[in-house]
Amino acid sequence: MENFIAYNPTSLHFGKGILADLVPAIRQYGKRILVVYGQGSVKRSGLYEKITHSLQSAGMEVFEYGGIRSNPIIEDVESAAAIGRDNGVDMVLAIGGGSVIDSAKVIALTIPVSHPAWDFFVGKATPQSGLPIITVLTLAATGTEMNPFSVVSNQKARMKAAVSSPLAFPKHSFLDPELTMTVPRDYTAFGIADLMAHCMEAWFGAGNCPMSDKLILSIIKEAMEAGPPLLNDLQSYELRARIMYAATLALNGITIQGKVSGDWGVHAAGHILSLLYDVPHGASLTIVYPAWMRLFKSQIGSRIADLGSAMFNESLTADQAIGRIEGFFLSLDCPVKLRDMNLRNPSMADMVEAMETSKVNGMNMKFKEGDYLKLVELFY
Amino acid sequence: MENFIAYNPTSLHFGKGILADLVPAIRQYGKRILVVYGQGSVKRSGLYEKITHSLQSAGMEVFEYGGIRSNPIIEDVESAAAIGRDNGVDMVLAIGGGSVIDSAKVIALTIPVSHPAWDFFVGKATPQSGLPIITVLTLAATGTEMNPFSVVSNQKARMKAAVSSPLAFPKHSFLDPELTMTVPRDYTAFGIADLMAHCMEAWFGAGNCPMSDKLILSIIKEAMEAGPPLLNDLQSYELRARIMYAATLALNGITIQGKVSGDWGVHAAGHILSLLYDVPHGASLTIVYPAWMRLFKSQIGSRIADLGSAMFNESLTADQAIGRIEGFFLSLDCPVKLRDMNLRNPSMADMVEAMETSKVNGMNMKFKEGDYLKLVELFY
Repeated sequence: MENFIAYNPTSLHFGKGILADLVPAIRQYGKRILVVYGQGSVKRSGLYEKITHSLQSAGMEVFEYGGIRSNPIIEDVESAAAIGRDNGVDMVLAIGGGSVIDSAKVIALTIPVSHPAWDFFVGKATPQSGLPIITVLTLAATGTEMNPFSVVSNQKARMKAAVSSPLAFPKHSFLDPELTMTVPRDYTAFGIADLMAHCMEAWFGAGNCPMSDKLILSIIKEAMEAGPPLLNDLQSYELRARIMYAATLALNGITIQGKVSGDWGVHAAGHILSLLYDVPHGASLTIVYPAWMRLFKSQIGSRIADLGSAMFNESLTADQAIGRIEGFFLSLDCPVKLRDMNLRNPSMADMVEAMETSKVNGMNMKFKEGDYLKLVELFY
Repeated sequence: MENFIAYNPTSLHFGKGILADLVPAIRQYGKRILVVYGQGSVKRSGLYEKITHSLQSAGMEVFEYGGIRSNPIIEDVESAAAIGRDNGVDMVLAIGGGSVIDSAKVIALTIPVSHPAWDFFVGKATPQSGLPIITVLTLAATGTEMNPFSVVSNQKARMKAAVSSPLAFPKHSFLDPELTMTVPRDYTAFGIADLMAHCMEAWFGAGNCPMSDKLILSIIKEAMEAGPPLLNDLQSYELRARIMYAATLALNGITIQGKVSGDWGVHAAGHILSLLYDVPHGASLTIVYPAWMRLFKSQIGSRIADLGSAMFNESLTADQAIGRIEGFFLSLDCPVKLRDMNLRNPSMADMVEAMETSKVNGMNMKFKEGDYLKLVELFY
């Protein structure tokens, strides 16, 4: 076991009707609220209206920034931060999925500063202060609702990059599984894949902690138990709740405590597919993971075999494990090859070049010269 | 799944040499430190001297209260709080095991008030403020280092009672497994049993959350994997670390999220054995648990069978499961009957009477008329 610090101050409010506690939670941080949201589904569903109405009824002033994209971009962060700054807001309320919350985190860090938000992502600046962040989650997938991470794209720089700061922990996150009932089948599946991939990044990370291994497998098996039936019963509160909670646990810290780090090479490579072809995040991971395991299986074959054996309750070789995991992703109707997506002319050269620009790598398993091309070939 | 709020703001600093971060953590809360400790083992080991010297070198003033007993009593809490109050301390630093930390929590809540500390335990007062608490843990067992609970005895009232307040979360807890190396074999085993019992209280609690069930079993299995070899190798850092971390997870909230509550009837009954006969807490639990399962097996037989089957990786009946769990406790050299302890004349009537006085009960499984006697008979 490695030394670690476990710290997670987010209050997670989970369950049916839990938004009743939203206004009291917000009230303690001020009265001028910047509400950020995505492509308008929260307006169409009435959720935005319901929440802002309750804020206004409580005497608060609401400022808004909508239109955050599903792979969020730094320009939206800058524009939203300018609105917050100009209006002297006290806090940021995110209503939406991972992209909206990831954006809200950086918006809250950027409002107090005069430099570009992107500086946080490239190490030119470290967050020193930030407005309080409260989130209302509408998609079970990324776990951002209970962690200090944010991932944002910069299309000009052709990079998708991450920032982490204790200041980026949401103060409160509200998770009502009923709000995820309207998520379509494909994005529900991508969310399940995403949470499983987060666990796998921890599994394949550096360092050895048997307790964390057990927690990782617990979350993966919960996703495997609740995920497939959910895809056949999208209105099941219980199954929605199980996936939503598993997604939070998959990236709130418990999978990695006692290890050196997760790997995150698969996420880094997956981000390239999102950046170049707007592949949904979860879908990029189900394409990259089987390829990544095939690329590295000579080095970590027994670790791959152990994962698959635990997932499927039988003794598997590494090759069998990869095949079964790929099969499970397919059973969720997630893509495992580029051809499973309707992409317009994906280019090996472009993917390899973007990986080079972004210096795609894992924290444990390192890509060597020529590995980008080998990996990309395995996407076909 | 039930609605829940997950909130745990404690910073857990875990690992070898982690005390290097202690003074910086303390410094942010002030300069006048009340240090509380137990029966002197931290003085004999040199740990007390090492820590207080580093505090004084950093310009802090140290006040001390030693002598907290292994089943902590309210009189010590009152005396320590008076010292803290009289000297205007800024915070409380606990160096020790669960009893010292449980006491420190209530000391920190009591210093600012003028009523007796016991009022918090009997519902006559609710904590409104509290001094910051920092802990240095020297015994892996209770999980108090990362939760808001405290259990203290009142011998005059013949009660052992619990209090819970968000104010009682330690701000920081420092867990260096090396500090537990000197814990003798019996108390090491009691700690393993204690953490397993905490998981079992969650398992037998009210409400159904499949994710929590999986987390509970993960922690129990970690204890079963690392516990027995540790008893044969008390100087193993790795095994000490695994048990120490498992003990924290067993009662930091993750076993119970999504359920209504744990049960805690076994703890309530075990407290009676500690109160009357000073039975170590962990030992009281290994005596009570088999008896409790036998008492309730007609109602929760399948739940008992599921637990045992998962623990021992084979399909067991409830009776077989109870026998195997009892056997596991015996394999740790923990008592499973009163006769396994050298008690002076334990009295059935006294135990039943004390259970009546304390209104011993579970939050899920309720003792009916006559059950106290039936339970106590099963201790023999």
